Amino acid sequence: MAPVKKGILERLNAGEVVIGDGGFVFALEKRGYVKAGPWTPEASVTHPEAVQQLHREFLRAGSNVMQTFTFYASDDKLENRGNDLHLTGQQINEAACDLAREVANEGDALVAGGVSQTPSYLSCKSESEVKAIFKKQMDVFIKKNVDFLIAEYFEHVEEAEWAVQVLKTSEKPVAASLCIGPEGDLNGVSPGDCAVRLVKAGAQIVGINCHFDPLTCVKTVKLMKEGVEHAGLKAHYMVQPLAFHTPDCNCQGFIDLPEFPFALEPRVLTRWDMHKYAREAYNAGIRFIGGCCGFEAYHIRAIAEELAPERGIIPAASEKHGTWGSGLEMHTKPWVRARSHRDYWEKIQPASGRPSCPSVSSPEGWGVTKGHADLIQQKEATSQQEIRQLLEKQKKAKASA
Amino acid sequence: MAPVKKGILERLNAGEVVIGDGGFVFALEKRGYVKAGPWTPEASVTHPEAVQQLHREFLRAGSNVMQTFTFYASDDKLENRGNDLHLTGQQINEAACDLAREVANEGDALVAGGVSQTPSYLSCKSESEVKAIFKKQMDVFIKKNVDFLIAEYFEHVEEAEWAVQVLKTSEKPVAASLCIGPEGDLNGVSPGDCAVRLVKAGAQIVGINCHFDPLTCVKTVKLMKEGVEHAGLKAHYMVQPLAFHTPDCNCQGFIDLPEFPFALEPRVLTRWDMHKYAREAYNAGIRFIGGCCGFEAYHIRAIAEELAPERGIIPAASEKHGTWGSGLEMHTKPWVRARSHRDYWEKIQPASGRPSCPSVSSPEGWGVTKGHADLIQQKEATSQQEIRQLLEKQKKAKASA
Amino acid sequence: MAPVKKGILERLNAGEVVIGDGGFVFALEKRGYVKAGPWTPEASVTHPEAVQQLHREFLRAGSNVMQTFTFYASDDKLENRGNDLHLTGQQINEAACDLAREVANEGDALVAGGVSQTPSYLSCKSESEVKAIFKKQMDVFIKKNVDFLIAEYFEHVEEAEWAVQVLKTSEKPVAASLCIGPEGDLNGVSPGDCAVRLVKAGAQIVGINCHFDPLTCVKTVKLMKEGVEHAGLKAHYMVQPLAFHTPDCNCQGFIDLPEFPFALEPRVLTRWDMHKYAREAYNAGIRFIGGCCGFEAYHIRAIAEELAPERGIIPAASEKHGTWGSGLEMHTKPWVRARSHRDYWEKIQPASGRPSCPSVSSPEGWGVTKGHADLIQQKEATSQQEIRQLLEKQKKAKASA
Amino acid sequence: MAPVKKGILERLNAGEVVIGDGGFVFALEKRGYVKAGPWTPEASVTHPEAVQQLHREFLRAGSNVMQTFTFYASDDKLENRGNDLHLTGQQINEAACDLAREVANEGDALVAGGVSQTPSYLSCKSESEVKAIFKKQMDVFIKKNVDFLIAEYFEHVEEAEWAVQVLKTSEKPVAASLCIGPEGDLNGVSPGDCAVRLVKAGAQIVGINCHFDPLTCVKTVKLMKEGVEHAGLKAHYMVQPLAFHTPDCNCQGFIDLPEFPFALEPRVLTRWDMHKYAREAYNAGIRFIGGCCGFEAYHIRAIAEELAPERGIIPAASEKHGTWGSGLEMHTKPWVRARSHRDYWEKIQPASGRPSCPSVSSPEGWGVTKGHADLIQQKEATSQQEIRQLLEKQKKAKASA
Repeated sequence: MAPVKKGILERLNAGEVVIGDGGFVFALEKRGYVKAGPWTPEASVTHPEAVQQLHREFLRAGSNVMQTFTFYASDDKLENRGNDLHLTGQQINEAACDLAREVANEGDALVAGGVSQTPSYLSCKSESEVKAIFKKQMDVFIKKNVDFLIAEYFEHVEEAEWAVQVLKTSEKPVAASLCIGPEGDLNGVSPGDCAVRLVKAGAQIVGINCHFDPLTCVKTVKLMKEGVEHAGLKAHYMVQPLAFHTPDCNCQGFIDLPEFPFALEPRVLTRWDMHKYAREAYNAGIRFIGGCCGFEAYHIRAIAEELAPERGIIPAASEKHGTWGSGLEMHTKPWVRARSHRDYWEKIQPASGRPSCPSVSSPEGWGVTKGHADLIQQKEATSQQEIRQLLEKQKKAKASA
Repeated sequence: MAPVKKGILERLNAGEVVIGDGGFVFALEKRGYVKAGPWTPEASVTHPEAVQQLHREFLRAGSNVMQTFTFYASDDKLENRGNDLHLTGQQINEAACDLAREVANEGDALVAGGVSQTPSYLSCKSESEVKAIFKKQMDVFIKKNVDFLIAEYFEHVEEAEWAVQVLKTSEKPVAASLCIGPEGDLNGVSPGDCAVRLVKAGAQIVGINCHFDPLTCVKTVKLMKEGVEHAGLKAHYMVQPLAFHTPDCNCQGFIDLPEFPFALEPRVLTRWDMHKYAREAYNAGIRFIGGCCGFEAYHIRAIAEELAPERGIIPAASEKHGTWGSGLEMHTKPWVRARSHRDYWEKIQPASGRPSCPSVSSPEGWGVTKGHADLIQQKEATSQQEIRQLLEKQKKAKASA
Repeated sequence: MAPVKKGILERLNAGEVVIGDGGFVFALEKRGYVKAGPWTPEASVTHPEAVQQLHREFLRAGSNVMQTFTFYASDDKLENRGNDLHLTGQQINEAACDLAREVANEGDALVAGGVSQTPSYLSCKSESEVKAIFKKQMDVFIKKNVDFLIAEYFEHVEEAEWAVQVLKTSEKPVAASLCIGPEGDLNGVSPGDCAVRLVKAGAQIVGINCHFDPLTCVKTVKLMKEGVEHAGLKAHYMVQPLAFHTPDCNCQGFIDLPEFPFALEPRVLTRWDMHKYAREAYNAGIRFIGGCCGFEAYHIRAIAEELAPERGIIPAASEKHGTWGSGLEMHTKPWVRARSHRDYWEKIQPASGRPSCPSVSSPEGWGVTKGHADLIQQKEATSQQEIRQLLEKQKKAKASA
Repeated sequence: MAPVKKGILERLNAGEVVIGDGGFVFALEKRGYVKAGPWTPEASVTHPEAVQQLHREFLRAGSNVMQTFTFYASDDKLENRGNDLHLTGQQINEAACDLAREVANEGDALVAGGVSQTPSYLSCKSESEVKAIFKKQMDVFIKKNVDFLIAEYFEHVEEAEWAVQVLKTSEKPVAASLCIGPEGDLNGVSPGDCAVRLVKAGAQIVGINCHFDPLTCVKTVKLMKEGVEHAGLKAHYMVQPLAFHTPDCNCQGFIDLPEFPFALEPRVLTRWDMHKYAREAYNAGIRFIGGCCGFEAYHIRAIAEELAPERGIIPAASEKHGTWGSGLEMHTKPWVRARSHRDYWEKIQPASGRPSCPSVSSPEGWGVTKGHADLIQQKEATSQQEIRQLLEKQKKAKASA
């Protein structure tokens, strides 16, 4: 079945909409298979049925891309993050490829192998050391014959360029995605300039993932597109944002919100917010449209339903979802039946049920980037004394914010 | 393994805390396997792997009870709700029992078979007709040898009494749980009086599930307990609330909130809210503590973690969760490491990121109950004309609210 | 002019609506003539033009009652509150009577002399000592020949009864107004019982002022009315609430909100909120309708405009106010002209412009009442050490709230 | 007394802080003397005691400038706004000068005569016609010998330049103040460019008043200062913002908020917000610091109290205000005494008591400016049909916002 599928570039070149999947670490953290803090994907080996089930939900919701669950699965990271199962990056990456492929084969989806920013870069290791990390992960993806590669979740465009340069050697299509906002990367390189550098490094698809809410990410990809076009270059565009509202974020994105990562619930987007996002992304000329942390299957389904007219297909999971709430025509209570139409849900302004909470937060104002002593990554858990020192720094960061 | 497990009453009589599971219809709706509106559980037959995975997540999070995924699986409901797969209630109930048993056998959990309120009752059918519905479902539970029975999600205590009377004939332990608030059932029978009637009908465990947030449900169970004790009776108590904040609900519970069922996201409780709930329930003398709609595995885990000192055990999934956020000691960003302690999370007032939304909503003020013409259940989907009539009624309900 | 005016009881007996004025201490604090904390009315002597101007604004807005600015002007209070001008209560009370009378004579208003709760009562002095305080104030009111008397702002019905018993000896009409909510006075006496006791003590008009928002106060007066009617008695009813929204108050009212008294701005009612209040009060059978802390002239005008159809008159200040915003027909900007109608203002849900603030607060939970050691009043300013002790008590109050 | 006072430029040249007053139209609208919509100042003639009292409150609060109450008192405006008393601009302007002078003589304050934007300009009349309007008003100010002149509340810098050019012919000091935000005037001229043009036209003091909240206005004046300095010019700076929080405004300022002008209450700044504003303005190098719509005397007093250390004086009204709430040391309730310190009030996040309201609003998106047909000013009140047309346009403005 796989051999006859159209590749990612064929689809995008043909103007098709490619729907991505959602973030695995947040979804599996809630299900009990990923630990917040390390955020590493050893569940690909230890609990394959849970990982596979999540792939299936996204496939059923309309995803055309199964990203291998290999986030942070580089050896430097695994070691750095207290991987006490003694699994190697290779073991995890191989298992993740098999899981993604098996589910991809159940439908019209491609497998994408992914690499992300490394502790080695943030610890100021050399270009060749950092590239060696990416190479090692890529070798598994080649061995397992994924359909294309994604370098994603980079805060510094320089590291993303290095990743793209490595992945290009595979001769597979390469997508590159930064986790930055409209203000640019952590060194202040603008989205337009970042995009130009990534395209020049060899990425055929560029865009944004994680750290900001959908409309902010679409806005940033627009700036990337303007930069690329202004430079006389060509590319496809992708966006895979958070499923959390983040109007109050600074350049660090949701990591610097006080609610990160354990109190983000009130910010979760509804399926109707996702309709707006999908339309906005489509109108901006973005054709690879997916999600990141916070996305669940029903969010992806909403994208697929919004773009059903353009795509001519509806996802399998829509058998369990009337468009714009029409399933409510069969609800027990008559007044809930009266909500079975688009106008109701399109206009709803949902209440939080939390009147003693504010509606926006003040980020603490951390703006550190690679090279800052504060950011040199520790293998060890932070000690009580270190926490106290951090709290002092924090007070200063807030005061100067 | 199953034969040596202690039964539900043995556990409660010994003063143990029994942790329930979360609501399946909402969780599986988001995953793409249940249709909002009908809310029926045919996925037990059509997508057993998805149902089983959800059972496993709750087991891993600490649940001691696997409720069979048989909500609304009575023939009258299935027919009423457009079951176009032509599955019988018996088929669904049998499959659901097998799934629950298989996962229960993987750990220290019991299987509970459940029946809920019926369209037959709401359509004013006779006592014997309604009881026949319950009997039919119970026969499957007996055949499959579940460990105990739950009559849950009743808005009218009368119907719950009938259910208990039927279930008692099985000689299995019987729990009974209403979906009412402190103001009582839809006919205005107080929680205390409801509880007395259920105990007299034969329930050994009584309590509340669904429709209201955790602290409201605990409050209502307290009123039930006072009623039972005042009547000189004895019972065990259970509570399985929503995972949504509902300070603005009237007697209809969250069904009458404008956000029901597709825009409840901002109301979802954090894990830290669940710690407060678990403690509050425990302090109120409730020993069967679980969840309903909106609960995911991490919510159940939070209950198990809060009550770990009393129970002497932590759930399997805590291997992926440092107590009170301690896993963040291994996060990349130093300022997130500084959040790895109880004080931070216990005090957080999470923002919604939705400054143009209100913090509470105005329910529409529907107060109808069994017997109202408005509530006679339709098999057919509501027509556009009927919707228009409903919107008119709604306007009046609002005006008089 | 004054001799021919109808008295307060003639008006109420004839079914007329009598419009009260607004609170002077809050308005004059903002204007710079009253000190928050002591809240004493020496401005009646030191800045008569400022007091007189405020009377005029209320008269112009439609007030039929000029309350003498004599709040807390008993000698025990003045001494207690650091009156360093060495003005006697008698001097202040006499000056205040003259100011009120002069403005009352400019229109259709009566002069009401007022007494309020005393530090002597809260310090557990004897009934005769407390009554002597009231007598001394009343003697001035008799000498200055005010039109009627009001005993207002009492947290304990017992003290209010004593005040009424004294004021009755004057043979002038007596109104009695407590600053309590629906839960009753600080000793838990219900509003109905309070009202019965006040009527039996001789008050012809009973009701509520201060401490709670308009709809809460109307609700409390309704309870008083039920009590009086149930006891087979007769009375007239008055209500003079805060102009602040207080949905989050406990029995102590707004005094226990964290925003009291210097950050209440976001709670101020709009003129449109006042229309609802006036209608609600009228529908409840209340005919003496005014305001207390937070009310400004435009709030009183809104009451007069709402009840213009019933009263057949509009206030002088309405020459500067088109009903329901119709004056905006002459605004510069066309889109503001589009707001010149009732529907727009009746439905507006005004934003706070403060997204990082909560929408409701948690009162601290002080519930102390007369007799509590914590409430024995000090003449001296609180010392730093005493403040520290208070903060400790506060923590406990919060914890048990 | 007046002859020996230092002039405005002497004060500013000496580095002194000059405190302005607050806005008269909003304050007097609430008191019943100004009609919202027309917003004209005929009360200077009809109710001099009310205008004088407001001047006195500001003087007492620390104002060094008494602005004549002559807002919109040009003949074209008076005629345009339905002045049915047949008062001429000259009568009003003369009366206003006398009132301001009388109060200024009671303390250390100067009298400033003010002109504002004209309907003539917005109706596209010629430069000479518009200048004739300003000349006519100025002639009164010269006759009455005011201390300096202010051209304020201009949305288009061109009209402000014309005003300055006229006022300069008087040889009195001239201040010029626009009602624009950081995005510039309604034609998009940047704040920096606006300021340069005003200084070149002859203004010795330039700045911002009205339309935006204090911190936004300070930010805009900073941009003006940068522009002036970058152009190698010199000026003094002034700021007189709203006393309303407006984080949600677009270029039209608060006029385009749905709450304007009758539901702005929840946005009113506390006195503690004013402390922050005064400090921020001072730190930005602004030395003429006052207020506009929404300011009351206690807001001005807060500015004077914050800058007391720099100025070496406290205002008269501080006799009735303990710094940072210290007057609460004498409050009746002990827990209110515990709030008598800076830390409490500096950190308070006041609740709105309005949980069903949003925290920010969506302006409608009107962006029209001089020359737009929509803005041609009408003498006549808007008709019902015109209102309907406006509502249609509004819908479109919203849709494109």
